[in-house]
Amino acid sequence: MKFSPLLDELIEQFKVLPSVGQKTAQRMAFHLLERNREGALKLSDALRNAMEHIQHCRQCRTFTESDLCDICASSKRQASGTVCVVESPQDVLAIEQTSQYQGLYFVLMGHLSPIDGIGPKDIGLDVFAGMLDDTDTQEVILATNSTVEGEATAHYIHQLCQEREIKTTRIAQGVPVGGELEYLDGSTLVHAFSGRREL
Amino acid sequence: MKFSPLLDELIEQFKVLPSVGQKTAQRMAFHLLERNREGALKLSDALRNAMEHIQHCRQCRTFTESDLCDICASSKRQASGTVCVVESPQDVLAIEQTSQYQGLYFVLMGHLSPIDGIGPKDIGLDVFAGMLDDTDTQEVILATNSTVEGEATAHYIHQLCQEREIKTTRIAQGVPVGGELEYLDGSTLVHAFSGRREL
Repeated sequence: MKFSPLLDELIEQFKVLPSVGQKTAQRMAFHLLERNREGALKLSDALRNAMEHIQHCRQCRTFTESDLCDICASSKRQASGTVCVVESPQDVLAIEQTSQYQGLYFVLMGHLSPIDGIGPKDIGLDVFAGMLDDTDTQEVILATNSTVEGEATAHYIHQLCQEREIKTTRIAQGVPVGGELEYLDGSTLVHAFSGRREL
Repeated sequence: MKFSPLLDELIEQFKVLPSVGQKTAQRMAFHLLERNREGALKLSDALRNAMEHIQHCRQCRTFTESDLCDICASSKRQASGTVCVVESPQDVLAIEQTSQYQGLYFVLMGHLSPIDGIGPKDIGLDVFAGMLDDTDTQEVILATNSTVEGEATAHYIHQLCQEREIKTTRIAQGVPVGGELEYLDGSTLVHAFSGRREL
C-alpha cells in the first residue's frame, strides 16, 4: 500500500487504459480527486453504461447499443448495393467525414494475422459471407489498411467475393494530397505509377 | 454524433482526464470495448468509490478515506514532535520511500500563488496554524518544491512558525546525487557553495 486503499485501487485500475503506467495513473487519480470529482463520477457512469450496453451491430459488426447501427438501419444505404470493408469503427468515421460514400460498411474489428492466431472467423468473415449471400450486393470496396496484414485481408475477401461473382474494388494507392515526391517511399511511388490515369 | 450515443458519451467523458484529447479518448474507449470490458467495469467502480469516499485527513490534509490518515494515526509519529510540510501527497510518498523520516506531514495540496488567487487559507495554513497551537511541535521541516512559488510558500510558513517560536528548517539545496557540475545551473551551484559543510 502506498496511499490509502481506495486511492491505491483507483491508481491500479487506471492502468487498464492503453499506455497508462504508474506515474500517469497517479496523475489522473490526483487530478480528478483535486479538481473534478463530478467529472469522474460521470466518467464512471459512462464507462458502466458503455460496457454493459454496447454490442456489435448484427449486420456490420461495428459498435452500437442497438441491434442494427444507424448506417445499417438506413434504407437508402441498404438500397445502395455497395459494401465497404474496413478494419475499425474509426475507419468508418474517417470515411463518413468525407461525405462521399453513401453505401454500407462491414467492420472487421481487426485484420487476418495468423501469427497472432487471428483467422477469418475472428474478423467475422463468416458473417460477411452470410451478408453477401443474403443481400443484393453489387460491389465490395476493400478499404483495409495499406499494410501487409491489410493487403492479405483484402486479398482473402477478394477471393470470397470472386466465388460469388461480386465485383470487388480496392481503394487507390498513390501519392497523398499535399505529399512531396522526394519524401515518398519507393513502393508508394511504384503504386502511383502503375495506377496512373489518363487525363 | 459520431459513433453511437453511449460510445460518444464515453469518449467525451474520457476527456476529463489530464492531457487526454479526442484521439486518445477514442483509443481508450475502443481499447476497453474490444479488449477489457471487465477491467473497464472495475475502473468504473474504483472511480465511484474513490470519489465518494476519499476525503482530506483531518490533521494533515492528505487524501484518505478515514478521518485520520495512517501516518497521523500512528502514535509513534505523533510523539516525534516533527512536521514536514510538503505540497502534494506524491511528495509524502517520495519521502516515505526513503524510510529516513519518522515524523508527521502536513500536505498543502498546492502552493501560494496570488496570481491564481490561491492564498494561505486555500492551502490550509489556518488548519496548520491550529495544528501548531494544539500540538507540541519541536521542528517544522519545509519540504516545498524548489520553485519560486515553493520558496515563497516556505517563507510564509517560516514566519508562521517564528511567531510561535518553533524551530523551522528547509531541506538542503545543492548538487543532486549523480549530478555533474558542468550541467548544473548557476543558482543551484550558488546554493551548493553557500550550503557547504565542513568534513
